[in-house]
Amino acid sequence: MPSSSRSPHAETFPGGTPAASQIFTTVLSQGPLTRLELARRAGLSAAAVTKAVRPLIESGYLVEDADAGARPALGRPANLVRVDGGRALFIGLKLTGDEIIGVLTDLCCRILLARRLPLADRDPKAVLASTAEIVGELLTEADGYGVRVVGLGIAASGDVDRVEGVVRYSPFLEWNDVPLAELASSVTGLPVTVDNDVRALTVAEQWFGAGVGLADFAVVTVGAGIGCGLVVHGRVVAGAHGVAGEIGHVTVDPNGPLCHCGNRGCVEAIAADPAIVARIREATGVEVADSAEAVDLARRGDAGAREAYARAGEAIGRGIATVANLLGPELVLISGEGLAAYDLFAEQIRDAFAAAAFGSAAQCDVQTRPLPFEEWARGAAATAIQSFITAPN
Amino acid sequence: MPSSSRSPHAETFPGGTPAASQIFTTVLSQGPLTRLELARRAGLSAAAVTKAVRPLIESGYLVEDADAGARPALGRPANLVRVDGGRALFIGLKLTGDEIIGVLTDLCCRILLARRLPLADRDPKAVLASTAEIVGELLTEADGYGVRVVGLGIAASGDVDRVEGVVRYSPFLEWNDVPLAELASSVTGLPVTVDNDVRALTVAEQWFGAGVGLADFAVVTVGAGIGCGLVVHGRVVAGAHGVAGEIGHVTVDPNGPLCHCGNRGCVEAIAADPAIVARIREATGVEVADSAEAVDLARRGDAGAREAYARAGEAIGRGIATVANLLGPELVLISGEGLAAYDLFAEQIRDAFAAAAFGSAAQCDVQTRPLPFEEWARGAAATAIQSFITAPN
Ligand SMILES: [Zn+2]
Ligand SMILES: [Zn+2]
Repeated sequence: MPSSSRSPHAETFPGGTPAASQIFTTVLSQGPLTRLELARRAGLSAAAVTKAVRPLIESGYLVEDADAGARPALGRPANLVRVDGGRALFIGLKLTGDEIIGVLTDLCCRILLARRLPLADRDPKAVLASTAEIVGELLTEADGYGVRVVGLGIAASGDVDRVEGVVRYSPFLEWNDVPLAELASSVTGLPVTVDNDVRALTVAEQWFGAGVGLADFAVVTVGAGIGCGLVVHGRVVAGAHGVAGEIGHVTVDPNGPLCHCGNRGCVEAIAADPAIVARIREATGVEVADSAEAVDLARRGDAGAREAYARAGEAIGRGIATVANLLGPELVLISGEGLAAYDLFAEQIRDAFAAAAFGSAAQCDVQTRPLPFEEWARGAAATAIQSFITAPN
Repeated sequence: MPSSSRSPHAETFPGGTPAASQIFTTVLSQGPLTRLELARRAGLSAAAVTKAVRPLIESGYLVEDADAGARPALGRPANLVRVDGGRALFIGLKLTGDEIIGVLTDLCCRILLARRLPLADRDPKAVLASTAEIVGELLTEADGYGVRVVGLGIAASGDVDRVEGVVRYSPFLEWNDVPLAELASSVTGLPVTVDNDVRALTVAEQWFGAGVGLADFAVVTVGAGIGCGLVVHGRVVAGAHGVAGEIGHVTVDPNGPLCHCGNRGCVEAIAADPAIVARIREATGVEVADSAEAVDLARRGDAGAREAYARAGEAIGRGIATVANLLGPELVLISGEGLAAYDLFAEQIRDAFAAAAFGSAAQCDVQTRPLPFEEWARGAAATAIQSFITAPN
């Protein structure tokens, strides 16, 4: 059960029961739905649906409309239950090592507007000041909607303990044990949910993206780091101690390059952008400044640069095969800013996955899905919505 | 939803709903329980429990007793609901490469008696004849209990598709695409559930063993092969295509020994018994015949033999860390016949796990749990019970 730092007078959701949260989530991600279909998809009786839906309709979180399109041969048209997106607003932030990406969303997690703010300093105090600034801007804009912002979600890479609201370790922010939920709540006055950024993105994909209706899928992100969000049995895997989905630290080569985790040859130490850049510098002697220059060099046909991407693709493919061999998901989505170089390693990802997938695990569908950082920020808003609708009242 | 080959006149369980199966499973693994406690643990209302429990009591699968021990200060003592183990019998078989281990259990999966039958031949026809023989013996014994055997579970290693009832690939049996559920049902007349042996063992651990009450844990088995059963969000992971838990094919060293899966340096290619024996022969020149001789040689202090076990332990520890990094379980149980050599690689397992676990994933509790093959056969019986109580009627 996710918790969040909550201000004392925060608006609460009239769900109150796991069934109400489950029904609301089903309508949110799959609605509009008839009550009958809602009961079927939530695996609940019609009576349970009626009981759970009533307070949600009375308080305006759900609305029931006559469905103009559905005209059964006999009887009245079935009413459709849907979420009233305008009933509440949320803010989602994605922290990277050098900027904050923020979105204002409605209750249906539709992005109303987006902002970016560069981070001059990664120190928690500086990041917190920037957080207050971008949230302040979004709150001002939100005033125009005449609806309250009732939750803030913040997503950061690394080992993030959502239950405790603490960023335990974030390599890009260079943070250790920062109680971000509490700190951000004190500067914004909002209830705050913090989560690992890839898990947050996975929530958004499960509710609104390519994962809708799937019980088992994975989101693998490539770029500054290599991450993975896992949905198993219809729920995002959080890990008993807050760590899960660390595909970046699957070992590919025990004699490979040193990883920031202390081991050698992790996927991240071979396939993350800084690892590719370092490898290209070493192999070619060309002082490429960043991954944009690295991609350029490889696209111009430089053998050393191409080989670095090929190795990265092989590492990513092996990492995905490890996920498939352990969990057998239906679908793996590859996303992240590293997709900009996808043409340089797609073939190696596919080949390494096919070679390392065991038996029918190879049937797993592997797709790419480009998503800008605003979608990650939307994922953070989704975690705030999740906390809002599951909070005990 | 697991299916099984079912004979047309098989006894059916009066559950009929997911709630009934869930309630029965909760009583089975955690009972006896009061109705109140049962509702709490199953996350259902008292009314839902009453509705689901009634037909189960009427048909004798559940019984309700006054609890002599519980004497509340006010009011009547609370009644306790428990499973009547004697209401139905089950047979569970574990197939290894050279024998069948069979158990007769009651509905509470208590082993009433056990039998072993050597397998002279791994050909599906021969194994099927032996299956018929051992099941026949157990059915004859079951007659003495005056209760019907209503299900047969068969557990085999490898890629087993429980839903389809097919052993897709089993390295030790050297089988490909054997429709075992259908074949075994035709020779025994029983409804048959087939499953991967480690997953079956994991069901037994979840219901009756060290995993009771845990939402997330793993069973890692070492011996002839290296397997893994995973429980995530309270349910055993089966994989969308039937493959899951293949820790044996996590890559430890891409330049390592060739694995039967076609890759190099898989955990299984380094740490399974045959791999250890092969390595010792190569390193020492001593023609050890099997793992018993290999263990002997290592215990006598032979450096080459000790090094082979050390490498195996390191590979197993890395494999477990991979599971912990991806899923963050509360507990990992190490079991399997390979535990006989545990003193030879325990330290390396621990050290490699600690080195490769990412952040707080290292907090995962790793324990050994010696379980004889009869417990694996019991796991197969547990899968038959599972099919019985979840079958639509
Ligand atoms: Zn690492
Ligand atoms: Zn292998």
